[in-house]
Amino acid sequence: MPEIPKKQKAQVIEKTGGPVEYKEIDVQKPGPDEVLVNIKYSGVCHTDLHAVNGDWPLPTKLPLVGGHEGAGIVVAKGDLVTDIEIGDHAGVKWINGSCLACSFCQQSDEPLCAKALLSGYTVDGTFQEYCIAKAAHVARLHKDIPLDAVAPVLCAGITVYKGLKESGARPGQTVAIVGAGGGLGSLAQQYAKAMGLRTIAIDSGDEKKKMCLEQLGSYAFVDFGTSQNVVKEVQEATEDGLGPHAVILVAVNEKPFQQAAEYVRPRGTVVCIGLPAGAYLKAPVFESVIKMVTIKGSYVGNRKDTAEALEFYRQGVIKAPFKTVGLSELQKVYDMMHEGKIAGRYVVDTSK
Amino acid sequence: MPEIPKKQKAQVIEKTGGPVEYKEIDVQKPGPDEVLVNIKYSGVCHTDLHAVNGDWPLPTKLPLVGGHEGAGIVVAKGDLVTDIEIGDHAGVKWINGSCLACSFCQQSDEPLCAKALLSGYTVDGTFQEYCIAKAAHVARLHKDIPLDAVAPVLCAGITVYKGLKESGARPGQTVAIVGAGGGLGSLAQQYAKAMGLRTIAIDSGDEKKKMCLEQLGSYAFVDFGTSQNVVKEVQEATEDGLGPHAVILVAVNEKPFQQAAEYVRPRGTVVCIGLPAGAYLKAPVFESVIKMVTIKGSYVGNRKDTAEALEFYRQGVIKAPFKTVGLSELQKVYDMMHEGKIAGRYVVDTSK
Amino acid sequence: MPEIPKKQKAQVIEKTGGPVEYKEIDVQKPGPDEVLVNIKYSGVCHTDLHAVNGDWPLPTKLPLVGGHEGAGIVVAKGDLVTDIEIGDHAGVKWINGSCLACSFCQQSDEPLCAKALLSGYTVDGTFQEYCIAKAAHVARLHKDIPLDAVAPVLCAGITVYKGLKESGARPGQTVAIVGAGGGLGSLAQQYAKAMGLRTIAIDSGDEKKKMCLEQLGSYAFVDFGTSQNVVKEVQEATEDGLGPHAVILVAVNEKPFQQAAEYVRPRGTVVCIGLPAGAYLKAPVFESVIKMVTIKGSYVGNRKDTAEALEFYRQGVIKAPFKTVGLSELQKVYDMMHEGKIAGRYVVDTSK
Amino acid sequence: MPEIPKKQKAQVIEKTGGPVEYKEIDVQKPGPDEVLVNIKYSGVCHTDLHAVNGDWPLPTKLPLVGGHEGAGIVVAKGDLVTDIEIGDHAGVKWINGSCLACSFCQQSDEPLCAKALLSGYTVDGTFQEYCIAKAAHVARLHKDIPLDAVAPVLCAGITVYKGLKESGARPGQTVAIVGAGGGLGSLAQQYAKAMGLRTIAIDSGDEKKKMCLEQLGSYAFVDFGTSQNVVKEVQEATEDGLGPHAVILVAVNEKPFQQAAEYVRPRGTVVCIGLPAGAYLKAPVFESVIKMVTIKGSYVGNRKDTAEALEFYRQGVIKAPFKTVGLSELQKVYDMMHEGKIAGRYVVDTSK
Repeated sequence: MPEIPKKQKAQVIEKTGGPVEYKEIDVQKPGPDEVLVNIKYSGVCHTDLHAVNGDWPLPTKLPLVGGHEGAGIVVAKGDLVTDIEIGDHAGVKWINGSCLACSFCQQSDEPLCAKALLSGYTVDGTFQEYCIAKAAHVARLHKDIPLDAVAPVLCAGITVYKGLKESGARPGQTVAIVGAGGGLGSLAQQYAKAMGLRTIAIDSGDEKKKMCLEQLGSYAFVDFGTSQNVVKEVQEATEDGLGPHAVILVAVNEKPFQQAAEYVRPRGTVVCIGLPAGAYLKAPVFESVIKMVTIKGSYVGNRKDTAEALEFYRQGVIKAPFKTVGLSELQKVYDMMHEGKIAGRYVVDTSK
Repeated sequence: MPEIPKKQKAQVIEKTGGPVEYKEIDVQKPGPDEVLVNIKYSGVCHTDLHAVNGDWPLPTKLPLVGGHEGAGIVVAKGDLVTDIEIGDHAGVKWINGSCLACSFCQQSDEPLCAKALLSGYTVDGTFQEYCIAKAAHVARLHKDIPLDAVAPVLCAGITVYKGLKESGARPGQTVAIVGAGGGLGSLAQQYAKAMGLRTIAIDSGDEKKKMCLEQLGSYAFVDFGTSQNVVKEVQEATEDGLGPHAVILVAVNEKPFQQAAEYVRPRGTVVCIGLPAGAYLKAPVFESVIKMVTIKGSYVGNRKDTAEALEFYRQGVIKAPFKTVGLSELQKVYDMMHEGKIAGRYVVDTSK
Repeated sequence: MPEIPKKQKAQVIEKTGGPVEYKEIDVQKPGPDEVLVNIKYSGVCHTDLHAVNGDWPLPTKLPLVGGHEGAGIVVAKGDLVTDIEIGDHAGVKWINGSCLACSFCQQSDEPLCAKALLSGYTVDGTFQEYCIAKAAHVARLHKDIPLDAVAPVLCAGITVYKGLKESGARPGQTVAIVGAGGGLGSLAQQYAKAMGLRTIAIDSGDEKKKMCLEQLGSYAFVDFGTSQNVVKEVQEATEDGLGPHAVILVAVNEKPFQQAAEYVRPRGTVVCIGLPAGAYLKAPVFESVIKMVTIKGSYVGNRKDTAEALEFYRQGVIKAPFKTVGLSELQKVYDMMHEGKIAGRYVVDTSK
Repeated sequence: MPEIPKKQKAQVIEKTGGPVEYKEIDVQKPGPDEVLVNIKYSGVCHTDLHAVNGDWPLPTKLPLVGGHEGAGIVVAKGDLVTDIEIGDHAGVKWINGSCLACSFCQQSDEPLCAKALLSGYTVDGTFQEYCIAKAAHVARLHKDIPLDAVAPVLCAGITVYKGLKESGARPGQTVAIVGAGGGLGSLAQQYAKAMGLRTIAIDSGDEKKKMCLEQLGSYAFVDFGTSQNVVKEVQEATEDGLGPHAVILVAVNEKPFQQAAEYVRPRGTVVCIGLPAGAYLKAPVFESVIKMVTIKGSYVGNRKDTAEALEFYRQGVIKAPFKTVGLSELQKVYDMMHEGKIAGRYVVDTSK
């Protein structure tokens, strides 16, 4: 039985706009259906910065401990918890808990539950040493998965895997990944490949081109920065010139959201994952009807998607590069993020 | 063996913009994979007027015999035709033929075939006494189906049935029909009911309200002309206040296309069928992603959808009111249509 | 706040083989995630008799209070229960609870959960005045649903509705119901009709024939007692002679399980629901492959199926005839059941 | 324009039971919707031997030219054929043609068409230099695909790919292949891998074990010859011990057909492809219902499956070892086949 301290170090947001303060707070006790996880590492995601800044319509809890990509070890659990043991490895993700009883939970759409608890947003998250989560919702982590490397997979990896499932693309079909060179995009290419899909990477710059074609498994690259005609180039990159069966949008600006419906194959599906501020999906009615195009939003994965995405990771087919810093340095990471200076994912070590 | 005349009466468009001329032309001979159908009745659709006026990007054949909702009797067939006999009743519809070999035809999406022949648009249609169509594509009509009444079903009925299938709504679920009081909308309500769906009719005016609730089977009506808050009212019309599982858009203006994504239930589907000129689908990315909303276009039905929609009609659960005039009076029907004076569907009798 | 007694009347099985004893026992207290339901009525199902007799490989709890079709009022709840209130109407069904965390629960297949609690089998059931159930699993009952009449729907109704969903049959398609005149079969015909399906009833005797055609909505009846060739007759009862799209097997003997694969349409599905003792599914490999036939087992519904099946019932389209006796007379019902003397469903009133 | 001779060499069966006679016969002319293919290579399949011997209920054409895995070059075509050109490479497969108009053809189930023409069975097949086939049905072959190597893929490859699709297994899930070491089984493992599935090979002998694990991509092997408990061993080979999500049966004897339903995961699917003479599918009703198991037959692929399976082949991820002999030596191949002496696939060169 591990000894659990009364006090711990955490990064706390006292008021909207921040900053985060690195200080000592109480360790909480899990309720009957909860676990307490000793977070070892936590990924830092753009969403965390949005939470600090209060960018979204939904208000956060205050004071707030942010973070929703935490990987650690279960150190305590409530009386009702029977399927997870002290010492098991677990991940705390965006969906911290849900009611498990509403019509959405009943159909495995826990992320749509109106009572869903959001880690680092409506409940305290993973930028602390000990974090509470609903036992039914923590991700089960095999012990051969490294806790630092898996942290970013817990949010970005699951989200793109879900989007690929939602696209309905079948093995052998072609998927265009828009924003392929970014964090979500590079995971999307790898998951797509593991799922038997062929990918066309869409992004800008020779460095990204090289990475997509040589490391991430795409068979074609379209540079939206230099292309004279993105629509035509994407369609020509497919075997029969009819366009990709699906498009995964992880870009952070609006334009690609409106081009995708043009180059996707008739009967194809455009999946929106990225959330450019204030952006709109837009497509001409006439062409969308005549081509029978589907446009859909995909949010984070449910628990089943989580388990599946992690199993792909465990088998070694997914790589997510990251840098590690101490939890105490979180504000610096936010500063870099704010300035757009981050390449790859940062992971914080809660012990430092 | 019926006697086939050499000459026949037809309504011919000599140049884009019209008018149609009622005159004598040659009767054609079917090719090896075609049938010749003695059209008895043909419905008149807005699309026919678009063809006359050249409203759409795709050019029509010229001179052109319009019409794509024709019901009649097979009077001749090519050598390769084995599954349809002289004397059989048949319907000639928008999709006159397709290649039956491309990747879309292979997956039963004949309407997406790049080589699809369009009746009354790229090939001569049903505003003549004798019409050619590909044997594999003519609708098979049971002999107990009246040829005049079924004419409008051959386009409008099949199209809304297809849209309802594409919505993915299951028996017991709720579908909102936007533009419920129009020709497509009133068929959509009836098909939905036959499919075990519950419908909320959305349209304007007390007359339409009465018709939708008392004759067409909807359990709720939302009047977009008088409602203070259409989104709220539609959601409140559902059992749990979460909104309909699907929305079928058959309206002829743009606004409802942008509201539907707001009131549809999370995980719900918005199906666009109507084609308001120059309209755009538009939905906020953030809400669409968070709610996992699907927006899709649905074009006309394939051959299987056609057979299914006609079987519902044959069982007597679908009514499509219509008025009959002689083929010679087609221009008058177009004039009324142009002036927006038509209520219900017109059917022309090719013998007059 | 209702007053909850310390003691109550219950029917208790002390040892396998029975009999049941009507006696006073303690009222239990709900755990944090449980509710206590004051059962008003409980249906009596063949499964209850199997539990008494120990007919199945899986052992029951002992001493045991049987029953799994209980309808009543929530009188107490645990601290974690937030979505159900004291005074709400609720149904206790076969699946009393499940882990809500395993891979099956994650994909909404709670009935396949290895830790599922079975009412009246592995936990005490509804043949008592106050029954415990997991809050996330009790069926929510609208207050306009009569508690006596709905009792049999909680097991039989949900089970056949699930089977119809599993069949994959779409509105307008044809389903054969084998054992149509029995309790499950008569519910199956009604649910099928509400789902837009057309049904062929298969059973024996003129009385059942009349009931199926005149009251339960089937359009054809095949009498397996007098038919010279059931396979041929069933196929001929379909429009095109190719056989029904699906077959629902609720019969209690083995033979129909082996005929169904012969008359089902190519690409059709045979769904097994009934559980004839020691029976085997059997179908010739050659014909099954050439016709691409699917044979599948369907167990009880999950929570979503439950809510959907109850909503159909609430709308008044399902009727399940029943007789009511006092809970004290349960043994007599078992005796009649054992002797095969029961027509229709018995419901016990727990207050008598 | 290639020169087409009047006479050619062919292997002809004059009477049921054989033998085949290598002799000169007329070259046929294609009808309006047909092509004439100069067959270069043709695979030899067990089905061909069944055709010679009249083993199946369905009678063959007589005299008959067998063969249904032919790859060659289009040398003539009928007037209606527009999407395939003289000089294109094409494959003639089991389904030589179908009506393209019945309810099965309408839903892309051409193999279920009652009027389907079967190459080398109801119409002359590919054991001749020039073979007729319906243009809409010949497989389109990219010119970088070698005509000899692809021959066996045209039947065996497409069939196992179809079975894998029918299984419903998704990328990341586990499929057991029963008969993994045979011709169908070794292709099934490779297709499964390309589709992102994980495979457990089931067969007998160390040689096959080595081949499955080292060359064909399976991660586990269960030897039914030496295993004390096949069911247990297969289940233990899965991550969580619950069994594979699907089972593909390509074995040639009956026993595995009855074991599969025992070890498949609850909600799993058993797909039968192999056709052991006189075999029956058999599964206990009770366990099949409780576990919600699906058992289904899968026949040959449709045209879409064909194109997809060939595209995987073209990308180089599928290998099908074969030996080549002259068409004149076909009887010897049959003799070896009859004696069970064949390892791998034989392909005949029609020019020799």
